[in-house]
Amino acid sequence: MFWILFLIFLLACFAAGATGGMFPPGDWYRSLDKPRWTPPDWVFPVAWTTLYLLMAFAGARVALAPDNGLALAFWALQIALNTLWTPVFFGLRRMRAGLVVLSALWLAVAACLVALWQVDAWAGLAFVPYLCWVSVAWALNLSVLRRNPDVAPA
Amino acid sequence: MFWILFLIFLLACFAAGATGGMFPPGDWYRSLDKPRWTPPDWVFPVAWTTLYLLMAFAGARVALAPDNGLALAFWALQIALNTLWTPVFFGLRRMRAGLVVLSALWLAVAACLVALWQVDAWAGLAFVPYLCWVSVAWALNLSVLRRNPDVAPA
Repeated sequence: MFWILFLIFLLACFAAGATGGMFPPGDWYRSLDKPRWTPPDWVFPVAWTTLYLLMAFAGARVALAPDNGLALAFWALQIALNTLWTPVFFGLRRMRAGLVVLSALWLAVAACLVALWQVDAWAGLAFVPYLCWVSVAWALNLSVLRRNPDVAPA
Repeated sequence: MFWILFLIFLLACFAAGATGGMFPPGDWYRSLDKPRWTPPDWVFPVAWTTLYLLMAFAGARVALAPDNGLALAFWALQIALNTLWTPVFFGLRRMRAGLVVLSALWLAVAACLVALWQVDAWAGLAFVPYLCWVSVAWALNLSVLRRNPDVAPA
């Protein structure tokens, strides 16, 4: 049962990750003025693949435990917000709206981490890299928004 | 606790529904050749608002019940796919990819309905209108794809 649950949560991550292929950064993103600490392009798919595996692991662990309602509600919320960000930022090129979505995602991931931890410490730990990465993404979105005030949405 | 859970699931639905405002149908959709049974425009937001309330109700009911893992894993999967469809169809105007996403969504909603029902009959019932509506949306997407073979993606 663990692996069936793991697969279903991983499919949800795959739906979120599919946005990365369908709304690619492309020339527009390359042309933006970005901070020096911007991770190189190859880091993003590697980071997300790792995070998706950890997120599916956390979901499946907690799905088998009792009193998991709050953790799984937040899990659903964070995957919906995760799916939303890429089309808003890279599709619409709305950097401000992207920052709003990322702020909501950060809160959802933080709440999910706490709720997961209360059910299962390993599940909570699996969300720590995710929260770190969303923090970096949030800072990068903010920095890019500030450095490119004259770039219009698509 | 029911209402907190209801609110979290409703926020996830709101993230999915936000795509409707950010990727509006617009002139492109109006200009497509659509079947005679296409619901009028005003039906869509009314239907989705109703469905979102029912989905949040189902999620919150099952989150408080034991042995809810499979149902909540499918709930997370369906909301991710739900969030994905609008940007693909109305944002990218990729009708074929939209149909693939809707097919996956239909399967996820059907699986979620069955899994919900096994935990709580009211939760399963709350997903019946959703499955009906996704069936209509699937048929509409297929019909529009067939009737407009020469319309290029955005």
